[in-house]
Amino acid sequence: MADETAMRKRDLLALIGAAGGGAAMYFAMTALGQAAASDYAGPIRLDGDPKGASVLVLGAGVAGMVAALELRRAGYRVQVLEYNARAGGRTWTIRGGDTYTELGGATQHCDFADGLYLNPGPWRIPYHHRALLDYCRRLGVTLEPFIQVNHNAYLHARGVFGGKPQRLGAVQADFNGGIAELLAKATDQHALDATLTAEDAGRLLDSLRGWGALGADYRYRPGRAASQRRGWARPPGGGLTAEPIASQPLALADLLRAGFWRALATGMEYDYQTTLFQPVGGMDMVARGFVRAVGDLIRYNARVGAIHQDDRGVTVTYTDRTDGSTRQAHADWCVCTIPLSVLNQIDIQVGGPMKAAIAALPYAPGLKIGLQFRRRFWEEDEAIYGGISYTDLPVTMIGYPNTGYFADGPGVLLGAYAFGPYAYEFTALDPAARVARAVADGAQIHPQYHAEFLSGMAVGWHRVPWTMGCFGLWSRESRAAHYRDLCAIDGRIVLAGEHASYIPAWQEGAILSSLDAIARLHRRVVAP
Amino acid sequence: MADETAMRKRDLLALIGAAGGGAAMYFAMTALGQAAASDYAGPIRLDGDPKGASVLVLGAGVAGMVAALELRRAGYRVQVLEYNARAGGRTWTIRGGDTYTELGGATQHCDFADGLYLNPGPWRIPYHHRALLDYCRRLGVTLEPFIQVNHNAYLHARGVFGGKPQRLGAVQADFNGGIAELLAKATDQHALDATLTAEDAGRLLDSLRGWGALGADYRYRPGRAASQRRGWARPPGGGLTAEPIASQPLALADLLRAGFWRALATGMEYDYQTTLFQPVGGMDMVARGFVRAVGDLIRYNARVGAIHQDDRGVTVTYTDRTDGSTRQAHADWCVCTIPLSVLNQIDIQVGGPMKAAIAALPYAPGLKIGLQFRRRFWEEDEAIYGGISYTDLPVTMIGYPNTGYFADGPGVLLGAYAFGPYAYEFTALDPAARVARAVADGAQIHPQYHAEFLSGMAVGWHRVPWTMGCFGLWSRESRAAHYRDLCAIDGRIVLAGEHASYIPAWQEGAILSSLDAIARLHRRVVAP
Repeated sequence: MADETAMRKRDLLALIGAAGGGAAMYFAMTALGQAAASDYAGPIRLDGDPKGASVLVLGAGVAGMVAALELRRAGYRVQVLEYNARAGGRTWTIRGGDTYTELGGATQHCDFADGLYLNPGPWRIPYHHRALLDYCRRLGVTLEPFIQVNHNAYLHARGVFGGKPQRLGAVQADFNGGIAELLAKATDQHALDATLTAEDAGRLLDSLRGWGALGADYRYRPGRAASQRRGWARPPGGGLTAEPIASQPLALADLLRAGFWRALATGMEYDYQTTLFQPVGGMDMVARGFVRAVGDLIRYNARVGAIHQDDRGVTVTYTDRTDGSTRQAHADWCVCTIPLSVLNQIDIQVGGPMKAAIAALPYAPGLKIGLQFRRRFWEEDEAIYGGISYTDLPVTMIGYPNTGYFADGPGVLLGAYAFGPYAYEFTALDPAARVARAVADGAQIHPQYHAEFLSGMAVGWHRVPWTMGCFGLWSRESRAAHYRDLCAIDGRIVLAGEHASYIPAWQEGAILSSLDAIARLHRRVVAP
Repeated sequence: MADETAMRKRDLLALIGAAGGGAAMYFAMTALGQAAASDYAGPIRLDGDPKGASVLVLGAGVAGMVAALELRRAGYRVQVLEYNARAGGRTWTIRGGDTYTELGGATQHCDFADGLYLNPGPWRIPYHHRALLDYCRRLGVTLEPFIQVNHNAYLHARGVFGGKPQRLGAVQADFNGGIAELLAKATDQHALDATLTAEDAGRLLDSLRGWGALGADYRYRPGRAASQRRGWARPPGGGLTAEPIASQPLALADLLRAGFWRALATGMEYDYQTTLFQPVGGMDMVARGFVRAVGDLIRYNARVGAIHQDDRGVTVTYTDRTDGSTRQAHADWCVCTIPLSVLNQIDIQVGGPMKAAIAALPYAPGLKIGLQFRRRFWEEDEAIYGGISYTDLPVTMIGYPNTGYFADGPGVLLGAYAFGPYAYEFTALDPAARVARAVADGAQIHPQYHAEFLSGMAVGWHRVPWTMGCFGLWSRESRAAHYRDLCAIDGRIVLAGEHASYIPAWQEGAILSSLDAIARLHRRVVAP
C-alpha cells in the first residue's frame, strides 16, 4: 500500500506515550488498521488425496479448529492439543459459575445472572469478515446485530464541558455543522477558487447546507435543522402540548478541545461499519460450533513443552495438566496456532528465520472488565440500547449489551476496554481493585453505578496464562523483516493464527491465516 | 422554534416539483422534521372518578387503542368502532394469505412465504419514541434492532459514475475526506484567521486529518487511511497471500453531482439515529399487543357515516360492512381518530373552526412495494444485511429485511418507498405493473432481480380506502391557522391521531396526541 499513509511503529509508540493514554492507544490501533477486511472467497477446496497423512494441530482456538475441520474433511488423520479445559482460545465467554485464574494466581469467580456474559476477547463480527460469517453459517451459529455507533451513548472528556458527558449524536451534529459552516465561509470568501470550479463550489455550498444542517445563511445555529440532528431541548409531542423547543449546539472550539472527533472517526472505520454481528448468547458460541464439528479430535488440558521434527514427522511433548504426566504425540505434519508470546518460551525445532520471527513480535496489552448491575439503568434512565460510550478516563470505553434489550433484572455491561498504559495500570491492581476502579471511573458518566453495582470480572490479556498478551502487534518494520519467515512452512511445521495475518486481533485473521497455511501444507503433501 | 430554520410549505412544494422527484420529496420531508422525538414521561395517570361516563372511540389504530386502553383503565365504559376487519390502521403488516383491495377495486393476493412480510406503514421505532417503546414493554411486544444506515448498501444516481451504484461507506469516506481536505487547505491558507484562534486552527487541522482520514500532508488520497474507511481494492488476508491493496477514492466533484450527501444527511437525522427498533415478526405486533388489551372493546367492519352530538352525548351512525345494515352507537363522549382525509367526507357535527381544520390538511401520497425473491441475494452476493439503498429512480429506496439474516429460502425486501410525484406515477399503473416497474428500477442496482423475482405487493397510501393518504402534511402556515382548532375539544368530541401532533407520520405522534386528548377530556369529565 502507499508509503505515505502507512504509520510507523515509532508513530505508534509516540502515541502510546502521549497524554491520551489508553484512548490514544486505542484510536491509534484503529488508525493502524490492526483490524481490516477479508479476502475469503468461499469454503476451501483441498483437492488431492493425502493418503492417510496425519496432522497434529496445536491449539483449539479458531485457527486450530478451522485447520482440524478442513484437514479432516480433506482426508487427513487429525489430532488437536489444547492447553485449556475448553476450546476457543481468545474466542471466550465468561458466565456465572465460571472461574478464571490469571498469571500470578489471582482467581475470580463469576456470579453473573443467567443469560448474562462478558466476552473478554472478540465481541463483534464485521459484515466483511466473510470467512467467519461463513463458518457461522456452516456451523449453525446464530447471529444478531452488534451496535457499534449509538448516537445516544456518551462522549466524555475530563475538564471539557465541566466533565459532563455529551451525547454522541449531538457531538456529531455539532462537529459536522461547525466544519460545514467554516468550509462554507471559506468557499464564499473565494479561498478555494483555485481548487473548485464555480459550479462545483455552488454544489459544495448546497451540500454543506444540507449535510451540515446549516441555515439559509450557511450558519450552524439553534433551530429546527440543528435540532433534527442533535435532538431537541423539548421534543415535539401531541395535541396541545406539542410544540418543540430547539436545543443549543456545543461550541466547535470546545469539541476540538475535547478531541471528540476521535470517537466519531472510530465509528466510521471500515471494521466498525454496519452491519456488525455478534453470536446470540456470547462469542464462544463460535467455539461451540466448531466443537460440534471437531470436538472429538481435541485433547484438552495439554500443555505443550516441546515441538520437534525430523524428515519423517513431528513429535510434540506435552504435560497433561490433569495429572501432571508427560506425554507425546506424533504426526506427519504440524499446524501450530500457539500465540507467539507463548511459543517463544517453548522448545520448537524450527530454523533461525522462523525462530527470529517468533521472538520478534511483541504482544499488545489489553483489558476488559464486565460489570453486573441490578438493572439496565442505561436503558431505563438514559435510553441507551447497545453501542459504546467513550471517555478519556482509564476505562476508555463503556460497552452496553447488544442483546436482551428492555429486559428486567440485572444486566452486564463492558465497564472497561483499555489498552496501552491504562491496561497495565489496571492490572497493577488486584482483580477486585480493578473492578472498583472501573466502577469509580464509570460513575463519572453514569452516577447510577454506585447504587446499582453488583459484581465484576476483570481480564487483563497480558496476564492470561495461555496468551500473555492480547494480539500480535506488528509494525511496518517487523512485518518487512519477519512476516514471510513466520508464515513459511518450516520442514513439517506451519504456524497459523491472527499473528500470521494482516488482520491481527480478529478471528477473521486467524481463520484466513489457517486456511492459507493448510492450503500450502496440503499442496506440499499431495505434490507428486 | 426559530423562524429562520423553519421550512415553508412553498419550499416543500418547490421540492416536490423539482427534478429529483420522489427522492427530493423524501429528503425534504426528512428535513422538515415530519418526524421527531417524544416528550413522553411515563404511563399516563388519569386521577379522579369518571362516574360511569362512556366514551366512543372511532378508529382502532394506535391512537384509538391507546385511548381505549387508558380510558377503560381510568374507569370509563369504552367502545371502539373500526372500519377494517382488523385493528392497527396504518400499523399494518401484509403476509402470505392476505388480500388487499384498494380504492378502485384492484385486489392483490399476497403469497409471501411463511415468516416474510411487508410493513406498508410504519416500519421503525426510534429509541426516543418513549411512549411507543413503553407500550411495547407493557404489551409484551418484542423488539429487535432496525438497521437504518448500512454502510455496505448502495447509493445510486442515474448518469453519475456511469450509473454504477456506490457503497454508502465509500461515499461517506470520500465526501468526508474531500471536505476535510478542502477545509484544511483553507485553514492552512489563513482564510479563516478571522474566525479561529491559532490554537483552535491547529486543533481543527488535527481533527480534519483524523476525522477525514487525510495523509500527513492533509490530502485525501489512496492509501491505508482512506481504505480503512472506504474499504480496500484487495482486502487484507492471512498467511502469504495477505497483503492488502488500497482502493481509489471517488472524486468529490462527482459525489456532489450525484447529490449523495442527501442520503448521508438522512442517516444523521435524529429520527434515524441508533438504536432504532422494529417488532419481531412485523409492525402489526404492536396492534396485536393492543388487541390483547382492548380487543374485546372493538367492533370491526364499522364504517362511520355520521357523528352527531348534543349536550347529553354523542351519537355515531355507522354501516356494518358485513351485512350493509345501518346501526347507531351512543356515548357521553367521543374520541375520533379517523384520518382527516376520511373525516372530511363524514357528516360530523362540530363547530366551524374544527371543520375548517379538518378540511385544511392535505394528506401526503406515499407508496411501498414489497418484493419476494427466491433467495436473499443481497446478503449472499453483496453482504448487505438490513438497511437501505437510495436511488434517484422512482422506487427511491430499497429496504433490506432487518431480520432473518443469513436465512436460506425466499426473502422479501422493500422494493420501493416512494413519495410525491413518483408515488402517483406508480399508482397510475395497476398493481401488477407497479410491481413490474419496481423490479425494472431495482434491477439497475441489483441485476439479480431478473432471475430471482417471485412476486410483489404494492400499497399506494393515497389509494387506501380508509386513509386516502399516508399522513397529514402540515405546513408552517396551516399549523398556525388550524392546529389548535383541530386539537381543541369541540363539545363532546376530541380528535386524535398523528394528524393532531407535531410528530406526523409516526406512531409516536398518534400516541402522544391520544394521551394529550384523553387527558384534557378526562379533566373536563371529572371537573367539579
